[in-house]
Amino acid sequence: MIMAKKIPVLEIFGPTIQGEGMVIGQKTMFVRTAGCDYSCRWCDSAFTWDGSAKGEIRQMTAEQIWERLCELGGDRFRHVTISGGNPVLIQALEELVSLLKNKGIRVAVETQGSRWQDWLYDVDDVTISPKPPSSGMETDFAMLDRIIDKLVGAGRASHVSLKVVVFDDDDFAYAKMVHKRYPNISFYLQAGNDDTKETDVTALREKLLAKLEWLVEKVAQSNELNDVRVLPQLHALLWGNKRGV
Amino acid sequence: MIMAKKIPVLEIFGPTIQGEGMVIGQKTMFVRTAGCDYSCRWCDSAFTWDGSAKGEIRQMTAEQIWERLCELGGDRFRHVTISGGNPVLIQALEELVSLLKNKGIRVAVETQGSRWQDWLYDVDDVTISPKPPSSGMETDFAMLDRIIDKLVGAGRASHVSLKVVVFDDDDFAYAKMVHKRYPNISFYLQAGNDDTKETDVTALREKLLAKLEWLVEKVAQSNELNDVRVLPQLHALLWGNKRGV
Ligand code: SF4
Ligand code: SF4
Repeated sequence: MIMAKKIPVLEIFGPTIQGEGMVIGQKTMFVRTAGCDYSCRWCDSAFTWDGSAKGEIRQMTAEQIWERLCELGGDRFRHVTISGGNPVLIQALEELVSLLKNKGIRVAVETQGSRWQDWLYDVDDVTISPKPPSSGMETDFAMLDRIIDKLVGAGRASHVSLKVVVFDDDDFAYAKMVHKRYPNISFYLQAGNDDTKETDVTALREKLLAKLEWLVEKVAQSNELNDVRVLPQLHALLWGNKRGV
Repeated sequence: MIMAKKIPVLEIFGPTIQGEGMVIGQKTMFVRTAGCDYSCRWCDSAFTWDGSAKGEIRQMTAEQIWERLCELGGDRFRHVTISGGNPVLIQALEELVSLLKNKGIRVAVETQGSRWQDWLYDVDDVTISPKPPSSGMETDFAMLDRIIDKLVGAGRASHVSLKVVVFDDDDFAYAKMVHKRYPNISFYLQAGNDDTKETDVTALREKLLAKLEWLVEKVAQSNELNDVRVLPQLHALLWGNKRGV
């Protein structure tokens, strides 16, 4: 008997809505995997990689994840988002993606674009979110080129988007550079959440919307960012920095 | 010499972002036409049809509208949204849509779905927003069927979405019914803005987000609304009930 491969899972929750990016607002379930090859300064899910939630990680098979999704979501979902951490570290997600597709479920993934897995070909909504200077990380553009070439070459262009989180002017310059490098890939700018520790939701909302307004104004003034979309994180506006919503 | 047809225009503004629906966040210019065949109880642009802004209506040719767009937007736009009122009352928009397409501009339109114009075939993002019971209006479903059949028949399905604004439980039931009638058309639920007179932006934000949370919860609990998207109006969150932003 072949042992099904295990996937390190930190949270499974939903139904809720996708808060950001190319399928913003989409009713979805979330599967959050553990582990990241980055350590962004402002990471809003640092518990996936900084050891603070180590005890919560469960090694699950694709089948077990499906059972848990059905337990929580019943017949009330047709879309699953796999997030992290960086899910693209995990080869074993191949089994989950293929199981979900067989069940008629649409699948979304978000990754920073530092790794490749063949199962990305089967994902309906691939959000690649290279990290701007404020993250403290370095983008491997050779790898990013390779990922985008593979997906575009396989006719998956309409299933891919790029999303850059913007906190400051340097990030904004980085966003312009990324959009210029991949002009034919749907491009999203996202207003950054400076304050992942803020617990007063009203105060956080005001800050996030002020940041969004600033970003909209920057984009409006630029002639290098014309066919782009600018979005907030809806889940942060709705629920603040809470986990599992 | 053939006289170019005139289009009744109330506002031209931008660049800004599209606040709602299928291209939420998209950088765009707005052209708002005057006149509506409906009079929704909670209309957030009643000045387009209630006579209060009558003196601001300008009769413009497509060419004049283009000049004004360029004056405001320079080389900083590739997308124009035509909104109202109900722009689909205006046959002469054919000339504007065709001019914009020739300039390489993507065009979006929003209408309640009470009328047809052949120029809808050429619009990139058609949002059809039939009005729920709280509006006080009656939907002409025979007309809605006809509009959707025409667009789908012409291979334009991916360019069309349905959007229902939801204020209360009756509206929610109506939304489910509309989605069931057109299961293959992208479907958006939008949290209604009860209070188009509220001038305190912080208070309005709290109300709008409470409404969005309520709607997300309703959708999460329903097994008839699985492949749908739930969205707020970003412009109302950002700028409250102000015009021209
Ligand atoms: S790539 Fe994402 S999960 Fe990883 S550290 Fe950065 S923000 Fe956090
Ligand atoms: S259809 Fe739109 S513009 Fe016309 S009255 Fe209703 S909400 Fe207002």
